[in-house]
Amino acid sequence: MMSGLIRRVVIVGGTHGNELTGIYLVKKFQQYPHLLHRQSLECVTLLANPRAIAANRRYIDRDLNRCFANEDLANPALTSYEDSRAKEIAAQLGPKSQPQADVIIDLHSTTANMGLTVLPSSKNPLNLRLAAYLSTLNPLVRVCCGVQCNQNASVLRSLSPLGCTLEVGAIAQGVLNADYLQQTEQLIHAILDYLDALNQGEVLSVPSSLTVYQIISSVDYPRDSSGELQAVIHPQLQFKDYEPLSDGEPMFIKFTGESIPYRGEDTVYPIFINEAAYYEQKIAMTLTCKQQLSLETL
Amino acid sequence: MMSGLIRRVVIVGGTHGNELTGIYLVKKFQQYPHLLHRQSLECVTLLANPRAIAANRRYIDRDLNRCFANEDLANPALTSYEDSRAKEIAAQLGPKSQPQADVIIDLHSTTANMGLTVLPSSKNPLNLRLAAYLSTLNPLVRVCCGVQCNQNASVLRSLSPLGCTLEVGAIAQGVLNADYLQQTEQLIHAILDYLDALNQGEVLSVPSSLTVYQIISSVDYPRDSSGELQAVIHPQLQFKDYEPLSDGEPMFIKFTGESIPYRGEDTVYPIFINEAAYYEQKIAMTLTCKQQLSLETL
Repeated sequence: MMSGLIRRVVIVGGTHGNELTGIYLVKKFQQYPHLLHRQSLECVTLLANPRAIAANRRYIDRDLNRCFANEDLANPALTSYEDSRAKEIAAQLGPKSQPQADVIIDLHSTTANMGLTVLPSSKNPLNLRLAAYLSTLNPLVRVCCGVQCNQNASVLRSLSPLGCTLEVGAIAQGVLNADYLQQTEQLIHAILDYLDALNQGEVLSVPSSLTVYQIISSVDYPRDSSGELQAVIHPQLQFKDYEPLSDGEPMFIKFTGESIPYRGEDTVYPIFINEAAYYEQKIAMTLTCKQQLSLETL
Repeated sequence: MMSGLIRRVVIVGGTHGNELTGIYLVKKFQQYPHLLHRQSLECVTLLANPRAIAANRRYIDRDLNRCFANEDLANPALTSYEDSRAKEIAAQLGPKSQPQADVIIDLHSTTANMGLTVLPSSKNPLNLRLAAYLSTLNPLVRVCCGVQCNQNASVLRSLSPLGCTLEVGAIAQGVLNADYLQQTEQLIHAILDYLDALNQGEVLSVPSSLTVYQIISSVDYPRDSSGELQAVIHPQLQFKDYEPLSDGEPMFIKFTGESIPYRGEDTVYPIFINEAAYYEQKIAMTLTCKQQLSLETL
C-alpha cells in the first residue's frame, strides 16, 4: 500500500528450522510456482534459516526471529550465524524504512493449541481488514497483536509494516501435520487472493468488527532458587489457548500435586501455553486481553 | 528373578534428552526418594544422557538408545559421547550376561499417540504378567514387543531381561504434560508395588490373556529420488496408533493432495505414527500385528 498497490509478497518458511509446516509449504511453492501466480502481484518464497533447517533445530546460535531490531541489524559486532542471516535477509527485503517486500508472510508452528493464529505486522488498516477477512474463512483463525505490533519489533515480519506471522498448532517440533499444512496453504491462497483483488480495486467484504487478542505480558513457570521447574501447566489449562482464565482458576500444578491458581482481577486469555521453545525463554504462557476493533471507523 | 527375587530396580530417564517426562520424574524421585521406597527391594534412578538433557536434544553424537549392542559395547573404536555413556551405563547396570540391575524401567515419550505403551525387555513370563497387571489399571496401557524382544537388542533396556521401556504420548519434544507425568508415575508405582508383592510371595491377580502388538516392520515416507519427502501421514491415520489399518485404507497424502493407501493382505496396527525423531531414521510408522497370549500356560 506504500504506493497504493501491493507489488511484491514474500512467503517465508524456516525462520525456525524445526517448524516444518512453513518449510514444506515453501518447498512445495518452489516446486509448483504457478500456485502463487496472481495477476497483479509477484509472490516469492524464502527459506530463512537454511542451517537450522538442515539441523532440524530452532536455531544454530540464537533465535533468528529476535535478530531484526534496527540496532542489531546495524551492529557489525553481531556476527553469529543468525545475526548474519538477519542482515542478509534485511538487505534483500528491507530496509525497514523502505521495504523491498510490500507484504511479508512468515510461517511458524507452535506446540501450543493456537489453531491458525494471525499476528499482524502492524495495526495498519490493510492488515486488520485482511485478518478480518481470513477470520471469516476458518473458525480456527484468531488475530493476536504483539506488545510491539510495529516495525520496532525484532521479528522477521517487522521488515515490512504489511503482512503477518502465521502461528499454527498444536504441532510438535519436527513433525508435519497434513490438516494444518492444508489449512495454512488455504490461508496463504486467501491472502494472495485478497491482495490481488485489492490491487484491482475490488473490495472483498469483511465483518464490521474484529476480535483481537492483545498481548499484555508473559508468565514463567514456578521455579526454585536454582531455576529448576517446580510446576507444569495445569491439565485444565493445557491446550486451552484463547479460552478465558479468571482469578482462582488453576494455572500450574506442582510436581508434588498442589495446584497454583491464576491471580488477577481481570479475566485473561492465555496463548502460547506450553510452547516447547519458550521453556528456555522463561515463558510458560503469554496473557492476552480480548478486544473488539471496529473496522468501519478505520 | 535371577535368584528368585527382585533386589534392585533402576528407573532411567533422559536416554533421549528432549523427552522430558522421564527426566522430570527421575528428578522428582531424586528430590523425594521416599516415593520409591519398597520393603523388599532397592530402587535407584539414573539420568542416562546428561549432555543431551542439558542441550534439550535427543542426542549429541548418536542415538544413545541404539548403543547397547554387545559388539558395540565391546568395541573400543566407538568413542562418541553416547558410545562412551553406553559403556559407562553398561558397566554400572550390566553386563547383559550378569546384570547388576534386576529390573530396568526406561522412560520415554513420543509425538505419536501411543498412550502408555509398555515395551517389555523380553517375553519372560514375569514381564508379561507385569504388563498384563498394568493393562488392568489404565485403559491407555498397551503392550508392544519389538522385533528383537530380547537382550540382543541395542536399546538400554536390553541390559537386563526384566523390565520395559515406557513410551508415553502424544507429547511434543521439549514439553511436559501434567496428565502424562501423573499417569507415568502411577505406572512406576504400580510396577514397584507388583514387584514388591512378588518378592513377598503375594501373587497379584492378572488377566488370563494379554493382547500384545508384535512389531513386524517399519514404513518410510514416500520420497523422491533425492530423498525429499513427497507425502505426509494421511489425516485419517494421524493419531490413530493401535487402530486397525486394512488394504486400501489411506496411509499417506502427497503434497499435491493425492492419497496413498495401505496395500497388504493382512490388517495391521500402526504405531509410532509421525514420531518426530523417526523422520531421519526413515520411519513414518511401525506396523504391528495383534496377538493374544495366554498367560495361564506360561
